[in-house]
Amino acid sequence: MRTVYLNGEFVPESEAKISVFDRGFMFADGIYEVTAVLQGRLVDFDLHLARLARSLGEMALQLSLDREQLLAIHQELITRNQLQEGLVYMQVSRGVQDRNFLYPPVGSPLTVVLYTQAKVVLDSPLAKRGMSIIGLPDLRWGRSDIKTTQLLYACMAKEQARAQGADDAWLVKDGWITEGTSNNAFIITHDGAVVTRELSRALLPGITRGALIALVKEHDLRLEERAYTLEEAQGATEAFITSSTSFIYPVVNIDGHPVGDGKPGPLTRRLRQLYIDHALAVIA
Amino acid sequence: MRTVYLNGEFVPESEAKISVFDRGFMFADGIYEVTAVLQGRLVDFDLHLARLARSLGEMALQLSLDREQLLAIHQELITRNQLQEGLVYMQVSRGVQDRNFLYPPVGSPLTVVLYTQAKVVLDSPLAKRGMSIIGLPDLRWGRSDIKTTQLLYACMAKEQARAQGADDAWLVKDGWITEGTSNNAFIITHDGAVVTRELSRALLPGITRGALIALVKEHDLRLEERAYTLEEAQGATEAFITSSTSFIYPVVNIDGHPVGDGKPGPLTRRLRQLYIDHALAVIA
Repeated sequence: MRTVYLNGEFVPESEAKISVFDRGFMFADGIYEVTAVLQGRLVDFDLHLARLARSLGEMALQLSLDREQLLAIHQELITRNQLQEGLVYMQVSRGVQDRNFLYPPVGSPLTVVLYTQAKVVLDSPLAKRGMSIIGLPDLRWGRSDIKTTQLLYACMAKEQARAQGADDAWLVKDGWITEGTSNNAFIITHDGAVVTRELSRALLPGITRGALIALVKEHDLRLEERAYTLEEAQGATEAFITSSTSFIYPVVNIDGHPVGDGKPGPLTRRLRQLYIDHALAVIA
Repeated sequence: MRTVYLNGEFVPESEAKISVFDRGFMFADGIYEVTAVLQGRLVDFDLHLARLARSLGEMALQLSLDREQLLAIHQELITRNQLQEGLVYMQVSRGVQDRNFLYPPVGSPLTVVLYTQAKVVLDSPLAKRGMSIIGLPDLRWGRSDIKTTQLLYACMAKEQARAQGADDAWLVKDGWITEGTSNNAFIITHDGAVVTRELSRALLPGITRGALIALVKEHDLRLEERAYTLEEAQGATEAFITSSTSFIYPVVNIDGHPVGDGKPGPLTRRLRQLYIDHALAVIA
């Protein structure tokens, strides 16, 4: 049985329980982060911490744990759960209060939960065979740049993809792709440009997205941060997604149309390898 | 200490705890209902049950409790908590599962929580003095017609109203008012028409909204279900909100502009009384 961190204690997962009056449960009033683990070590922990700090700020949440404490909790969970490869999940909610939309007084204790999940990251089958995705309307709220637990539509969209025999969905707002349900979306054009949507309130500033963009520039590949449509994606040479625990997965089919020759493309494979090299170099 | 119903048991509220792996906490994958209580009895229980059934259907949730069981739980909580006036809150989430966006297998147990809150309903001070509200962009997701626990933006908007010294906010999408943060919005025009936004995926089909519309028609008042702007609302003769536990509260100020003479108007007062008469007639 896994060990879970909950509000200062390490407990067996069966005992990791929160009040039904937790605002995370009542209102989705909370945020989260997911950090990949390779060889028992964390990938880009400080970048996740920086995004956590941004989410906390946008939500007016004041977390009393500092970097060293959060790092120690992450590492203790990895050790206790003997995690070699997978992820550490961290969720912070605005704590427990009799039901009231208004926030509790400043300084009220937050709920802090962390746990691990084992997952095959480096040798993932989806990285080899590639994903099929469908396009769906982006019905999410107007602040998808904050990593909140308002994830119902991501669940619904992934279910709809599964019902259609696909692996995932890309979301389309006003005719333009924003991102995937839990990942950022990329295409590669016929002239070799790596294209992804520019950051805004409509999509999450993915940690892997950011690291990949740096790698693209570092290797003198062309990067375009701009809007593009599902039709352009279907006609692209290659397509892929980035996420903290998928790293990079090729997208080989969009709404039934093969992308390129319908197999993972060479530049996507190269970028995945570059990212894996990066991850293995920065784990700590 | 209150008694809470949780998954088949009546427990003290301090023991009403759910797993941190509950999908309601991780993903906001859940729905809720709030039913008013007057004189220890439920107001329009069957209408709330019908909306619950709709929410469950939209979310592909299969609740095994039938009407008689749900009614018995509501009534037992009212008795145990000696509730005379206030509400019964009910929340259903898609249950407990190791974190995975995809739904658990059909038939997996849901999480069902109910509790009471005492609240002054009939003699509410806000009903007498009226509310001041501000307009805010409606940043919620595209299915505000489903009563889900994705309520973060409602919390943020109410906080923003409080920060500006107001009581609540009305939400504006594409230039048109959709509804309040946790209530439906109404105005009364100079020629006496009662105006509220037509139902769509952009707003909740309020139980009180529906009952009030029936009363308006029954008393030969003119009803218009249509879009209107904040500017039209500011220039209206009267304005008010409806919700299951507020019934009807006058809105006397919108973004600093008094509505009418800045006091609760006569038709709003009359409608509130008609609704109270209705509620007292149907309580069961």
